[in-house]
Amino acid sequence: MNTFANNKEKLFVIKVGGNVIDDADKLNSFLKDFSEIPGKKILVHGGGKIATSIGNKLNIKSKYIDGRRITDDETIDLVTMVYGGLVNKKIVAKLQSLHCNAIGITGADANVLPAKKREVKEIDYGWAGDIETEKVDSGNWKIFLENGLNPVVASLTHDGNGNILNTNADTIASVIAISLSKYFGVSLIFCFEKNGVLSDVNDENSVISNINPEKFASLKKTNKLFAGMLPKIDNSFDAINKGVKEVVIGNSSQLCLLINGSGGTKLSMHE
Amino acid sequence: MNTFANNKEKLFVIKVGGNVIDDADKLNSFLKDFSEIPGKKILVHGGGKIATSIGNKLNIKSKYIDGRRITDDETIDLVTMVYGGLVNKKIVAKLQSLHCNAIGITGADANVLPAKKREVKEIDYGWAGDIETEKVDSGNWKIFLENGLNPVVASLTHDGNGNILNTNADTIASVIAISLSKYFGVSLIFCFEKNGVLSDVNDENSVISNINPEKFASLKKTNKLFAGMLPKIDNSFDAINKGVKEVVIGNSSQLCLLINGSGGTKLSMHE
Repeated sequence: MNTFANNKEKLFVIKVGGNVIDDADKLNSFLKDFSEIPGKKILVHGGGKIATSIGNKLNIKSKYIDGRRITDDETIDLVTMVYGGLVNKKIVAKLQSLHCNAIGITGADANVLPAKKREVKEIDYGWAGDIETEKVDSGNWKIFLENGLNPVVASLTHDGNGNILNTNADTIASVIAISLSKYFGVSLIFCFEKNGVLSDVNDENSVISNINPEKFASLKKTNKLFAGMLPKIDNSFDAINKGVKEVVIGNSSQLCLLINGSGGTKLSMHE
Repeated sequence: MNTFANNKEKLFVIKVGGNVIDDADKLNSFLKDFSEIPGKKILVHGGGKIATSIGNKLNIKSKYIDGRRITDDETIDLVTMVYGGLVNKKIVAKLQSLHCNAIGITGADANVLPAKKREVKEIDYGWAGDIETEKVDSGNWKIFLENGLNPVVASLTHDGNGNILNTNADTIASVIAISLSKYFGVSLIFCFEKNGVLSDVNDENSVISNINPEKFASLKKTNKLFAGMLPKIDNSFDAINKGVKEVVIGNSSQLCLLINGSGGTKLSMHE
């Protein structure tokens, strides 16, 4: 039994997706649940469709090459405004009204997420950033957590040369969870529009409660899982292998259940 | 002699105006100077003309009643995006590249600047906020400063009910300076496009180096000062009366001189 790990203080790292950001009622309800989580917690968010809609008004078109989003000069300014400004500060103000002492940041703030502009190989992704995980200093994060501040993190990083970079919110949540596992017993929670990992993608009641690596292998063999879920589960086990205590995947409208272990799909080494 | 005050650690609270924000070269040069200030420092910024230009593209028109700017629903979203997102995060990323550990915040973040929506009397100013100075908890600010973080503050506050409020950047700088005077020997620096308080508004070489209350009274009597400067000087002496050690008014291109006391106009009780 790993008593050392069990003695660590609990920390929740929670990622919320665009479907919640885009819906004021869903967002308010989600933030109320978030504000009521006792103890230390971090929220990671993307931008939802509002970036696209403001971009359209500014005549900034979403660019894709081979189905991959490209972050050009205009687009990085757009997401910096919308994710780092509009969405982030509205969430912070709302959480403050719920007596949750939130602080809205990007990876540039306090240098919490140093990253590198993605190298140009076949595709030039523009201002897309890959986090330099080994350079993430968990001490910077502890300043916030140990002073009762709950970080609300927009999915932006920086390259150390003065440039903001667009970075996947799931990846940001995983990196934070891994980095802070040194100090905390971290539960990483991915909130999305489904109730969890489903054994039948058309049946929201077919949630698989627990998955360990053996079960994952057998589920893959029998082709029971929706293909789109596989990379998410792979990444989750990678985070667990790197120190995260557990990963929970579930519906953003059920945050309380996901937190107390009675909803969603829990991925861990043992169960 | 107030030895207690002299023993306090130095803190610079620096406000930079829109003319610098709007000019990439000026801004870079200013941020380089800022990054080189030793010790504790806070930067307060507004948004410059970029908010107006993005607003125009989004078909959000600046609204005025009797010459006063009105912050309606669209405008608060606009300034939250531009001041709190685009401008703030660009400054932070740039400072990080200069090895200055900046953290970009608004008054909502960590609840550092609680404010109240301005009461509707003759004019409805919309989402304009007046800071509740007595509620500003300098402890929240100390968390940043004592951990080597340099706050970069966008001119936004919040009402505690979930709403972001537009607040004058000069006022924000003054309130921060006053609140932190309890713990620090605070120099409040207002950077603008002139070299200081001028005795002849058309002559940049006519900077008045030092003004104390007696000299201010006599300058007012002889109508030597540009009328537009009077409220700025009044507010500066108000800050000094509330504990700020000195106020320096001068050109943003001369930040080093303003910091070391060899440029601009220094307002204090004694000199």
